[in-house]
Formats: sequence, structure tokens, C-alpha cells
Amino acid sequence: MLHSINGMGKVLIVGSIALDSVSTPFGQVEEALGGAAVYAACAASLLAEVRLVGVVGDDFPQGHLDFLAQRGVDLRGVQRIEGGKTFRWRGRYEYDMAQAKTLATDLNVFADFRPEIPPEYRDSEIVFLANIDPELQLSVLKQVEKPLLSICDTMNFWIEGKRDELLKVLSRVDLALMNDAEVRELTGHASLLKAGRAALELGPRYVVIKKGEHGAVLLSEGHYFAAPSYPLPTLRDPTGAGDSFAGGLAGFLAYTGDVQEANLRRALVIGAIMASYCCEQFSLDRLRDVTHEDLLRRYGELRDITAFGELG
Amino acid sequence: MLHSINGMGKVLIVGSIALDSVSTPFGQVEEALGGAAVYAACAASLLAEVRLVGVVGDDFPQGHLDFLAQRGVDLRGVQRIEGGKTFRWRGRYEYDMAQAKTLATDLNVFADFRPEIPPEYRDSEIVFLANIDPELQLSVLKQVEKPLLSICDTMNFWIEGKRDELLKVLSRVDLALMNDAEVRELTGHASLLKAGRAALELGPRYVVIKKGEHGAVLLSEGHYFAAPSYPLPTLRDPTGAGDSFAGGLAGFLAYTGDVQEANLRRALVIGAIMASYCCEQFSLDRLRDVTHEDLLRRYGELRDITAFGELG
Repeated sequence: MLHSINGMGKVLIVGSIALDSVSTPFGQVEEALGGAAVYAACAASLLAEVRLVGVVGDDFPQGHLDFLAQRGVDLRGVQRIEGGKTFRWRGRYEYDMAQAKTLATDLNVFADFRPEIPPEYRDSEIVFLANIDPELQLSVLKQVEKPLLSICDTMNFWIEGKRDELLKVLSRVDLALMNDAEVRELTGHASLLKAGRAALELGPRYVVIKKGEHGAVLLSEGHYFAAPSYPLPTLRDPTGAGDSFAGGLAGFLAYTGDVQEANLRRALVIGAIMASYCCEQFSLDRLRDVTHEDLLRRYGELRDITAFGELG
Repeated sequence: MLHSINGMGKVLIVGSIALDSVSTPFGQVEEALGGAAVYAACAASLLAEVRLVGVVGDDFPQGHLDFLAQRGVDLRGVQRIEGGKTFRWRGRYEYDMAQAKTLATDLNVFADFRPEIPPEYRDSEIVFLANIDPELQLSVLKQVEKPLLSICDTMNFWIEGKRDELLKVLSRVDLALMNDAEVRELTGHASLLKAGRAALELGPRYVVIKKGEHGAVLLSEGHYFAAPSYPLPTLRDPTGAGDSFAGGLAGFLAYTGDVQEANLRRALVIGAIMASYCCEQFSLDRLRDVTHEDLLRRYGELRDITAFGELG
């Protein structure tokens, strides 16, 4: 077991719940459990008590909800729309697996999603706003009490279409999560260091830049940390890797109750490990079985993989 | 000063000496000093005694040779072809700076380059075969005595056009240096880990994969090391970065006289630092002024940038 400082903390996760159809050079799945909030919840629930806010149609398989409930995920915030269809995404990865080609996005009930935070969720220590309309992210921030740390993800669609609202979110969250292309587009800087620093000036105390197989970077006032990715011989399906990363990070912060920079570094590494397990199989097929021992083993390996001695 | 274990070691460097015309979003230079062997020699000569083998035309400015001689680079292996023109390369980098677009390559005297290793060079501890025809790399390997470590670089042109000869080189060198695209092309594996392991099976004791701004990876039997890159706010001209990396690595190994895996890790980090200085200015304008203190400072920074604590 990992050593917890403050016992099980609580993580609020708001975002998409989906049925994904994905093909990669290694196989394919049809209407498998997916969605940013689901990947994040699956990863975080290994380490913390998760409260989920999202929406599904009445076609959403009960088995998927049962699976989340078995992991201790509180589902009182999941709206089920009678007569509605669940959000579906269809994508394909080519040989290099670096980026998905979206073949179809059917928002269905997710198009009208208005997150309502149940009163019993409002004391969550860690809040993770997955990639949704920044206006909705703002409405969630208004509904929660003062969390220890709030985290937002975003994407190019909002950077381009709802920039002002996104800037408002960034001025209010504690940690902004983006990938390298997004932070470059948001700030207009090609240098990741300059882009990250410019993103910090928009308000958040921490900026985390996800770089896929190249790891992640954590920036804060006076600090810069380069987190490795875990080297995998076979990457079967990268869908949900970024959200598993976020869920692992959020779960670890809740578990430890420590949001200082030194512990954020550990949290990024835990996130990278969750992302590595996510990519090993389609959907949540590997992630759902990850244990504390799995985390500890890869954590130790990553410490070895990145170690180099002093000079002389 | 860095602490040297065995005093100044000797590095033999074989490869191109060029006049480069480069434009980037930050400026441009015309017929500036360049070439793989020159970048490597400049970096290595901060740490070791460098012996250079290459070829120039009679149009090559004496000032460039004087600059190298002032750094203690032995130039007895540099052939000067009367009536010949020096190798010229013209390239342009766009905004993202990740890859050069070659506008012109005039091999000139380099087209008929047949490296002849002066007898007094043959006892070099470290041999760096920069990117040249693998047949020429083989001929150099035959001309040297048993070095402590031999290193070869290569490129897609040889992977595609002289695969058999390249495989022969790989079966004879101790360390194979490639970038990520090259090792994938050479081995047919998309996963960098699989590609690196497959390259190891071709013979070398070490495989180093350069990933530009994403750092570098060192593979050997039972070991995997991920070296960071040094984060730069402004990258003015990446020309020669990979060769400065190789030169720093080779120079450090000669300086320390230690080619065990733990010291190879340090050597990769020294290489990454040399590459970072190379990119800060056009041509060798920053690299030429790097001091031991500069190396030590960035080395310490990189140890901090990559550090994360144990769990619990």
C-alpha cells in the first residue's frame, strides 16, 4: 500500500461519459466505456473517493455504472436522461498512434449538459474539470466550496471559440492542464518554456503540459519539472491517456492532501503511470485492474530510468 | 573545473566540414562555419584533445581553421583540396524549428572524401564517426586501434540506400546514435522502446536515440535511461544540435575515461547541455564560448528539473 498522509481524500470529477468506438493497428472496440470523466474517475478511484458529475442517456449500460460504483465512485451526480442517447465518439489511430483521427462525434445528451453539483459533493478537496465548455467549468467552480486544488483541462475547440470564457477559467483555477499544441495555440509561443510561463501569467498557480510519449512538464513560480513517460513496448490504444493522467494526478493529491510543488512532481509521475496502463489495452481494460503495487513498481522504475549521478 | 578521472583523453572525429547558410524566424547567416564534425569538435574540445578528419576546399577561410586550432583541435587530418570548393549546405527552419528544410546541398570536395587517419591519431580513446557513408565509417574503424568506445551517427539516406553497409557498421561500433525517426525506420518498430531494443540486437553495446527538444534515450542490456533536454526560452538555430550533443558525449567520455552505463548517463546529459548552447545562437556563436562553469550550472539545473521524491 502507498502511505497516505491524510487518508482518503475526495475528488470531484466533471466531464464526459461516453461510448467509444476505436480502431488502432492493434484491434478495435465498438461502443466501449469511455469519456474523459470516466477515465479520470477510474484512475483517481484507486487512490481517493471519487464523486462523478456527468450525463448519460437511457441507453447507457447499467453494467458500466455498476463497475464505477464497485470502485467506490459516487454516482449521485450522474444525470440519466430518459429517452436520450449517450455521447458517442468514433476514432481511429494510425501506425504512429500520436493523434486520433475523429471519424464521428455524436454529442447526444452531452450537448445539453449543465453540470449540477450535489450539495454533498461541495466539500471535495480536489476538483477536476475535464474538457468541457469553459462556461460550464465556471459554473462548477461557483458551485463548490474552496477546494484544496482545482484543475481544468481544455482543448483547441475552446481556445479558438470561447477564448474569453477560457481565460476566466484560467484566472480562477489552481492548475491548468493542456497538451503542448494547446498551450502553444493559447499563448502564441513556439517555445514550450515561454508558452508555459505565459500560461502561468493567466492566473493558475501550476501549469501542466502533457506531451504524450514525451512525458509532461510542470511549471510554477520559480520551478520547472520534467516528468518522464513510462516506456511501453506496446501501446494498443491511447484513448483516455490524458484523462487517466489527470485522474491519477488528482487522486494522488487527494490521497496525500499535499499540494506543494514537491508533491505535485510525484503526482505527475503517478499520472504518467496511470496513462501508461491506460494505453496498454483498449478502453479501461488494463486501467481497471491497476493496483497500488503496480503503481509502486513503475514509480520505482521511473526513478531509475531518470536518474543520473552528480559530476566528479 | 570538472573533475577528470584520467586527465585529457583523446577523441577522433570524422565527418563533414561545411559552410552553412541558414535562415530561421530569428535571423539568418550566410556561409557560416558548420558541418557535423565541426560542431562535434567544438563541443568535445572543451573536455578532451580532439583530432579532426575531414576535407575542405581552398576557399575555406583560414580563420575557421585558426579558431579550431586555438581550441587545441589537431588539424593534421583535415585535407585541403587545391582548386576544390568546400561542402555547402543551405537550409531553412520554420516557426516550430523541429526540422530543417534543405534548400541546397553542394557536396563539392566532400563528394570524394576518403578519410585517411594519420598514424598519430590511431590511439584515440573515443572515436566519433559522424554521419557519412557507412563504407567510409567502416574504413575508419579498420584504421584505428582498439578504442575505448566507438560511436557512429547515421541518417535516413544511408538507412535506405546502404542498409547492408550500415548494418556492418552497427555490428562493429560500441554506440549507435540515431534520432527517433531513424531508429524507427531502421528497425520497423513504431515503439521507441522496441525500436531501440531491436537496434541493440544489431550489435552495439549502447544505442542512443536523440529526440530533439524531448531529450534523448540510452539503451543497453537491462538498462534504459531517459535524458532530459535543457528547456530554452529561445531557440535561434538548431543546426548542429545533434552533433554538439555527440561531441559533448564523446568529449565527456574521453575526459573521464569511463564508459560504464552510469557514466554514459552523465555523458548524455553533458551532450544535451552542449546541444542547448548550440541552439541559442547561429553557427557556433554560443557553443564556442561555453565554459566548464556553464556545463556545471546547467547540469545542476537538469538534476533539479528531473528530480522527484520517493513515495510515502
